[in-house]
Amino acid sequence: MKTQLTEARRGNLTEQALEVSRSERMPPAMLIKAISDGKIVIPVNKKRRGAFKAVGIGGGLRTKVNANIGSSPQRSDTKEELKKLNVAIEAGADAVMDLSIGEDIDENRVQIIESCPRPLGTVPIYQAAREAGDTADFGIKGFLNVLKRQAEDGVDFVTIHSGITRGALPLLEKRLMGVVSRGGSMLIRWMRQSGDENFLYQHYDDILSIAAEYDLTLSLGDGLRPGCIDDATDEAQLHELRVLGELAGRARDAGVQVMIEGPGHVPLGQITENVRLEKEYCKDAPFYVLGPLPTDIAAGYDHFAGAIGGAVAAAAGADFLCYLTPREHIGLPDADDVREGVVLARIAAHIGDIEKNVSGAVEKDRKMSLARSKRDWNEMAKYVIDPQRYLELIGGEEQNDICSMCGELCAVKIYGESG
Amino acid sequence: MKTQLTEARRGNLTEQALEVSRSERMPPAMLIKAISDGKIVIPVNKKRRGAFKAVGIGGGLRTKVNANIGSSPQRSDTKEELKKLNVAIEAGADAVMDLSIGEDIDENRVQIIESCPRPLGTVPIYQAAREAGDTADFGIKGFLNVLKRQAEDGVDFVTIHSGITRGALPLLEKRLMGVVSRGGSMLIRWMRQSGDENFLYQHYDDILSIAAEYDLTLSLGDGLRPGCIDDATDEAQLHELRVLGELAGRARDAGVQVMIEGPGHVPLGQITENVRLEKEYCKDAPFYVLGPLPTDIAAGYDHFAGAIGGAVAAAAGADFLCYLTPREHIGLPDADDVREGVVLARIAAHIGDIEKNVSGAVEKDRKMSLARSKRDWNEMAKYVIDPQRYLELIGGEEQNDICSMCGELCAVKIYGESG
Repeated sequence: MKTQLTEARRGNLTEQALEVSRSERMPPAMLIKAISDGKIVIPVNKKRRGAFKAVGIGGGLRTKVNANIGSSPQRSDTKEELKKLNVAIEAGADAVMDLSIGEDIDENRVQIIESCPRPLGTVPIYQAAREAGDTADFGIKGFLNVLKRQAEDGVDFVTIHSGITRGALPLLEKRLMGVVSRGGSMLIRWMRQSGDENFLYQHYDDILSIAAEYDLTLSLGDGLRPGCIDDATDEAQLHELRVLGELAGRARDAGVQVMIEGPGHVPLGQITENVRLEKEYCKDAPFYVLGPLPTDIAAGYDHFAGAIGGAVAAAAGADFLCYLTPREHIGLPDADDVREGVVLARIAAHIGDIEKNVSGAVEKDRKMSLARSKRDWNEMAKYVIDPQRYLELIGGEEQNDICSMCGELCAVKIYGESG
Repeated sequence: MKTQLTEARRGNLTEQALEVSRSERMPPAMLIKAISDGKIVIPVNKKRRGAFKAVGIGGGLRTKVNANIGSSPQRSDTKEELKKLNVAIEAGADAVMDLSIGEDIDENRVQIIESCPRPLGTVPIYQAAREAGDTADFGIKGFLNVLKRQAEDGVDFVTIHSGITRGALPLLEKRLMGVVSRGGSMLIRWMRQSGDENFLYQHYDDILSIAAEYDLTLSLGDGLRPGCIDDATDEAQLHELRVLGELAGRARDAGVQVMIEGPGHVPLGQITENVRLEKEYCKDAPFYVLGPLPTDIAAGYDHFAGAIGGAVAAAAGADFLCYLTPREHIGLPDADDVREGVVLARIAAHIGDIEKNVSGAVEKDRKMSLARSKRDWNEMAKYVIDPQRYLELIGGEEQNDICSMCGELCAVKIYGESG
């Protein structure tokens, strides 16, 4: 059995690790050490075929950005999802998750994987729930069946909500918003109705077996993430995080790459502590955050509010930002929403990377500022995060070395002439 | 001579202070103390007429948002600026600055003031420079003439770049971006060419006399604010900040209300320290920040990057956020840009207010989350920062108690049914 993790432990530089080492300018020995310590993961299924760029996620690397796509019961259109996929990749997403819960989930996924040149993630419990419908079939058997099928298709990483255990249930009573994770809510309903322990926790070893076989990276889901700032960093959330720490250790022991998902709705002042706790409980496993959203009242702009939290989280050490779109909490995003979401998350990630002193981050800003000091509009386009938007907005606004904002009263020009 | 400051020192509750006390739910005695200590200002010119809502800015109050409007040499259209003004007010700006440098500055301003029900600020050095043109008339005489005229029209607060002194000039040599403040660059060119000290520093007492006469609040400008993250918190910036601290003290001694302007381009990790330094050097004078921008490469999205910095600054104690628009660094914003800029700055301010524990801030999020837990789309519209955008996006996406994102797999619904 070989995974990126077991290979790193043997001191072997895989093809994908070499690729990451080059793109991130991290010496191979340092990268191998970080992978074998579980601080960096390279999600790539052994069954992956076709164009693929290996992406490393974790400490010392550039902060990565994930874009969620996928159909909903209300809207199932594979073409539309493939369009979102392409838009996300063009806008610079480092990974994509297919969260489809509509029709034809299997075919949809196969097409998405074939078209996705970056790590592709899923949340298998969604499909398991769809296939079980309202029957009693929702359980470990159906889940493992879906997991195996998805792994066979080439999915690179999967969200697994094994960290919700019965011990957390009483802690939820104090919450304002209860549970806002789709997978989390399904499992809690099942646990409450059956009286049993979470089957993803009880049968975690079976999940690990499949993951090891395909080198499927586990993204341990935060089913109890807070759904409003009042619920942030509460006992229920921390209970799950401690369990995730234990499960992360078991994954590593099984040679399985693992990262940890995080909140959610968190006031700005608690974000750094949330990152610190994850790194402590989960022994520096890569931290994959959703937002965090530092306010609950930005609906319509949650992509923006989430990126504020994302920038602060990345600066504090979060490794992987899940984007939000303007339609978060409202409806299924379209391709424009996807583009906007990816760009904002990338800006947040870059702001974090400046603080992390990630290789090459500050240099971009420096080159941009040099170009700006020369009022060289074309040169600036090389360094901005979204050249397309920059060029659209600047169309006609610049005139030689000034722009329509200040005209001849350009501060940079006046200062340049001041001697 | 009466100003909000001198009245507070006498223990008098002015009409405007009463209004602020009510809208902010701050007890009158506490507000009077804060105004007399210079920690809160209420910018309102004695000549102000017509509809006006008094706005307090400073410690313990809600973080305020300013929108810049104004013509440029390339684009002078009073109607367009009045449109931007209305859009800014409708979007929730707490104050507006008219930065016009185009044609008919005087008439433009008179119309803007008449239509502006919030504090209106200007940067008089712009008009002084336009009127002097390339002649030797640029100096204190022309400046005081403009200042007096603007005060007579009813301007409520003015940016005054008195803090740039000759001592700072050698410190600029080390900079990558030099000086990016319009007023700052004009004064430095004048200082270098004349060999004299900054006339706004030398004749500061004359400025204070006019300010006291009209109760014109001074916003001491940061002419040496960093123009790229490499230049942040450097010796030149701190030199000016120390001078501003001295000038703030002299303003208070003269009964003049004063706030301090701040950066600019600042890496995320230096923002909190920038706020702390301002509060220390300027004895808790209200801090009015432009951004800050934690990256230089977000052109096209600087309103967003600036609001990331703004949220962190507000959380650290900044009192007043100057918005940026998508066209910052690129061209003159239009009305849509203004709207977007105001909303993003308001979200940033609110995120800061949650951390500051400003009266009423957390309650909004709590009410929103309660409505969300009931999937009550109409109720949520009452609490979101931008109901117009929310209602636009939600149009048709919601169906009874679910939305097109998750359909029946709505986590909130499933959890609600889990017993």
